[in-house]
Amino acid sequence: MKLGRVVRPTPDGPRARIVAVQPDTERVIDLAQAYALTLQRSGAEPERASKIARSIFPSSMAAAIGGGDVFLDAAHEALGAADDASLPLLEVQWCAAVDSPVIRDGLTFSQHIVNFSEKVAHALPNPNIYKIPGYFKGSTATVYGHNEEIPYPDFTDAFDYELEIGYIVGRRGRNLTPDDAFDHVFGITIFNDFSARDVQGAEMAIGMGPQKCKDFAYGIGPWITTMDEVSSIEGLTGSVRVNGELWSSCVAEDMVYTPAELVAYVSIADYLQPGDIIGSGTLGFGSGLELGKTLSPGDVVELELESVGTLRSPISKTREKAPWWPEPRPYPFEVQDVN
Amino acid sequence: MKLGRVVRPTPDGPRARIVAVQPDTERVIDLAQAYALTLQRSGAEPERASKIARSIFPSSMAAAIGGGDVFLDAAHEALGAADDASLPLLEVQWCAAVDSPVIRDGLTFSQHIVNFSEKVAHALPNPNIYKIPGYFKGSTATVYGHNEEIPYPDFTDAFDYELEIGYIVGRRGRNLTPDDAFDHVFGITIFNDFSARDVQGAEMAIGMGPQKCKDFAYGIGPWITTMDEVSSIEGLTGSVRVNGELWSSCVAEDMVYTPAELVAYVSIADYLQPGDIIGSGTLGFGSGLELGKTLSPGDVVELELESVGTLRSPISKTREKAPWWPEPRPYPFEVQDVN
Repeated sequence: MKLGRVVRPTPDGPRARIVAVQPDTERVIDLAQAYALTLQRSGAEPERASKIARSIFPSSMAAAIGGGDVFLDAAHEALGAADDASLPLLEVQWCAAVDSPVIRDGLTFSQHIVNFSEKVAHALPNPNIYKIPGYFKGSTATVYGHNEEIPYPDFTDAFDYELEIGYIVGRRGRNLTPDDAFDHVFGITIFNDFSARDVQGAEMAIGMGPQKCKDFAYGIGPWITTMDEVSSIEGLTGSVRVNGELWSSCVAEDMVYTPAELVAYVSIADYLQPGDIIGSGTLGFGSGLELGKTLSPGDVVELELESVGTLRSPISKTREKAPWWPEPRPYPFEVQDVN
Repeated sequence: MKLGRVVRPTPDGPRARIVAVQPDTERVIDLAQAYALTLQRSGAEPERASKIARSIFPSSMAAAIGGGDVFLDAAHEALGAADDASLPLLEVQWCAAVDSPVIRDGLTFSQHIVNFSEKVAHALPNPNIYKIPGYFKGSTATVYGHNEEIPYPDFTDAFDYELEIGYIVGRRGRNLTPDDAFDHVFGITIFNDFSARDVQGAEMAIGMGPQKCKDFAYGIGPWITTMDEVSSIEGLTGSVRVNGELWSSCVAEDMVYTPAELVAYVSIADYLQPGDIIGSGTLGFGSGLELGKTLSPGDVVELELESVGTLRSPISKTREKAPWWPEPRPYPFEVQDVN
């Protein structure tokens, strides 16, 4: 099943609604609405039917996934009333497919790791990348769905995208092994890890991970494909188009650590929580950095991933200027010449 | 006002409840209960009074803070019924004072920065620390309150604590300046950024920030003191006791970037969200690393902070062993001798 979130008007203002997506018939099914109809047909009072349906299909995808089996079971049941609760796929307004409690993003694909190190550090990859499946964490406040406009922060002149597979956690887990890690994965989506390359170096040198170079935008969508429809992560193909022009064709191959190893590592002494997203890391040649290209205001990026679909992100035509930026402090130590 | 969260039994299982804390009279007030009583006294039906009270004082502190002024206004009003809804402070079971949407943790205090760099990297601090008020982000799945047992992961032999001030965000903000940043801060708490020093170096070298060296435990509590009771962050005093023995006395002084600059920086191109916590960075000599000390299983750490109180954290007597740890991969490049 494919599951996403669209924004619909209500008397209380616009609200996110969970939908089942049927790309073949170009429609989405409002699952709370469809399930309420299903319940009514089995005798529920209309108001009770709506209450129960909204408790299983709330605005939050993370909360819905946290419902466990009842969520997918009810979603399948709701499809019986699909014809009476559908909307045209091409006309709905999307938001991030999931409101993840934690965003993590790993490194998996050797080719990207080598390309990145060459372009950013002009060096071979850090040896520690081959010792643990490292990852960073992102702000959950800056997530964007299909067709949502991505802000272009004024502090960068090297605005980039990254094509990644997003693993969506289905159920809580701790201290998992690669053998059982994917039992805790609900599905996959496309994860666009937007990046500001010119502020990335200074931030990473501090050792605390990305801040402004990442936390201005994460694209998540267009929807989640449940794992029963994904035969294997390895071998998935993808592509990048900018303003309609093909920039890259990518394959999920040549991995330092497997997806199962990354997910298991995340869970050590920590918890996987329903709705968490774990980015795979960028597919080889899945970023502009690797091609010597950057995005400009007004560009439109489309990331395609086999088994999922295409996540379209229009970049804002105007740069967003913050009124303040920190002044550098004098370095309070005498710097020795290293040579 | 001082606000925290305690766990109380209900017929549906244990549930977090927001309390006002009165350390002088050694009691806490269950605010949903007290406010429901207040509403009843002004004519509300009991069940309606409870519903309204629980909507303003839910289990989530972040959600409650997101209510804006109504939250604190109702809390003050509820204190009129305090005598009928109080619990003994020394007997309640605490949980993390806030369930933050995002955990961020900065660097502020020069002394700690110098000590840390000397001990971990045997070098002067990275110059980029003096160019931007950098910070990392933590897993929100591993937060612990006052008196809650902290797990001791088996992968470390250098278990450490860090005494920090936690700024709790009160309202949404973006692109703030140091002048208005603290208008968005609700209060402060004690933030114990537990650390595994022996895995920290390898993780930080990758550039993606902390993973296992931090994401096993964050202590948050015992409660939040609202900003009207805090005259100034600068100059706040604190102390560290382990098993009752004084290890450090600390002062919030000698800052590279001010608290207001850190909070404003976080908000650039990102959002502050109600309930977010931003750790100040460790106060000088506020970690064991700086003293050449580590914690052992069964130790009890008490962090005290002026204007707040004491956050007590008993460390588990047993080490938690994950069944799997990633195997290092062979480094696939010929390493040149750097000399």
